[in-house]
Amino acid sequence: MGQAVEIVEVGPRDGLQGIGPFVPTATKIALVERLHAAGLARIEIGSFVSAAALPQLGDTPEVLRRCGGLPGLVAQVLVPTERRGREALAAGARFLAYVLSVSEPHNRSNVRRSPDESAEDYRRLAAALPAGTRMRLNLATAFDCPFAGRVDPAATLALLDRLVPVLPGAEVCLCDTTGRADPDGVATLSAAALARFPGTRFAFHAHDTYGLGTANVHAAFERGIRVFDASVAGLGGCPFAPGATGNVATEDLAWMFARRGVQTGIALERLVAVARDAAALPGATAGGRVRDALAAADRLCGAAPTV
Amino acid sequence: MGQAVEIVEVGPRDGLQGIGPFVPTATKIALVERLHAAGLARIEIGSFVSAAALPQLGDTPEVLRRCGGLPGLVAQVLVPTERRGREALAAGARFLAYVLSVSEPHNRSNVRRSPDESAEDYRRLAAALPAGTRMRLNLATAFDCPFAGRVDPAATLALLDRLVPVLPGAEVCLCDTTGRADPDGVATLSAAALARFPGTRFAFHAHDTYGLGTANVHAAFERGIRVFDASVAGLGGCPFAPGATGNVATEDLAWMFARRGVQTGIALERLVAVARDAAALPGATAGGRVRDALAAADRLCGAAPTV
Repeated sequence: MGQAVEIVEVGPRDGLQGIGPFVPTATKIALVERLHAAGLARIEIGSFVSAAALPQLGDTPEVLRRCGGLPGLVAQVLVPTERRGREALAAGARFLAYVLSVSEPHNRSNVRRSPDESAEDYRRLAAALPAGTRMRLNLATAFDCPFAGRVDPAATLALLDRLVPVLPGAEVCLCDTTGRADPDGVATLSAAALARFPGTRFAFHAHDTYGLGTANVHAAFERGIRVFDASVAGLGGCPFAPGATGNVATEDLAWMFARRGVQTGIALERLVAVARDAAALPGATAGGRVRDALAAADRLCGAAPTV
Repeated sequence: MGQAVEIVEVGPRDGLQGIGPFVPTATKIALVERLHAAGLARIEIGSFVSAAALPQLGDTPEVLRRCGGLPGLVAQVLVPTERRGREALAAGARFLAYVLSVSEPHNRSNVRRSPDESAEDYRRLAAALPAGTRMRLNLATAFDCPFAGRVDPAATLALLDRLVPVLPGAEVCLCDTTGRADPDGVATLSAAALARFPGTRFAFHAHDTYGLGTANVHAAFERGIRVFDASVAGLGGCPFAPGATGNVATEDLAWMFARRGVQTGIALERLVAVARDAAALPGATAGGRVRDALAAADRLCGAAPTV
């Protein structure tokens, strides 16, 4: 009773970016509108990155222009550098998600610079932030790196020591980029981060690649984290890893929290309808279980003894 | 350090029973042998039920005869009545899993009698158990019933009050038959059961139908449960519910516990090889994530910013 979490829908960015065939801008806009109508109050609608490197999200400025004004919607955009952050602000963005990696090889692969350079960029962007604009700091590879393996929690906490004071009001998201975090590791780092920075709002970004998306979210919730990223239909699989699913599915988190009486503001049936269409996008790799389970819920199993 | 759990492989029973095309007996035997070779020390190899109602498991006596003697293997069989339990014993079974449901409509649907009748049957079977034979009590619908919805934890505890004293050495398994339990509910009931019956070994049987399989197992583990059922490749989807997956996948649990340093005795790579073949059985509905994730693990994602 009274407990609530905020689920941040990242499907239009993290979910779509891995899809090969270009998703028409009108489809993206309709997706954002329907997610919003299903109760998602914050949606990462795209990113400001090189359109040459990531043509799928080249229309983010237009999606932002068309969706940014939906009543009550916080339209978040991902930015990897100060320059892209300024571009996003100029395009009207009011909630930036700045991403850098704890792990050096991942940061170099992801944003083409060292973590130190990214940290300096974050400092500059934070200093340039206009009034009325909000920022989140996404710490990618906070638990595990595709190149370097397990990330020492001390390294993540040390980076937080440097960056949290830069912009004390920023939300900080601990990201399980590879999906290889385990519930115990998530619980430990979540508890340590919350204890060390009691004034900071923390978020957790789960991938379900190894089947631990909901388990890790629940572990973070138990330790006090109240903001969770998720992607409609679990979109977000890596195009170079067939069958490997991506972000934890928004509808699975909505279901889990609803079952245990935690408010999300999400209308599950509306969300599931959106998720079914999102899962059917050409080129999409869908994850999550709740869509199929709810479709089957009225058809009961037969006479075989079940336990 | 030093923590360990026992994972009970139920794929050859719970996983196969929902498959339409008959799985040849030789395939079942090879599956059990390979699972055993991958480190599964207890395997539910079948059930003693009406072969007319469940032809897929009609060859359980032969599977038991061929696999019961594998060195170190505990070959568990499911029995729904005293009569079937006696049949299983006569066929050489030395570890019975007796199933009854907390929920009356599910018990009537599943084993064609009232929970009281099933409880009396359990009493009789327990009294007839020869020396050297072990028993587990599976409490189906311990959390939720497909017909009646949520099950009051007090009802499950009340049934335990009646049945635990019947055979104090029996293992008791709390079964999330529908997959609709949530981690908080699992934690609460697990803690209550362990506190009430400190001398009893409890197990937890998870279904991943709604994506909460690993989350629920982890919640039970955190409260002290140390025995978990799982099905190779997540087999066990209901044939009347297309797309709705079944038991939590053994390889996903093996992965989760390995990541957090809890011993299972399972050789993950060998298990995954078995799981790939099991997922390819004609008529099978597979679940789980770890198979695909490990296959893709060496192929890294591209240049798109990832968090």
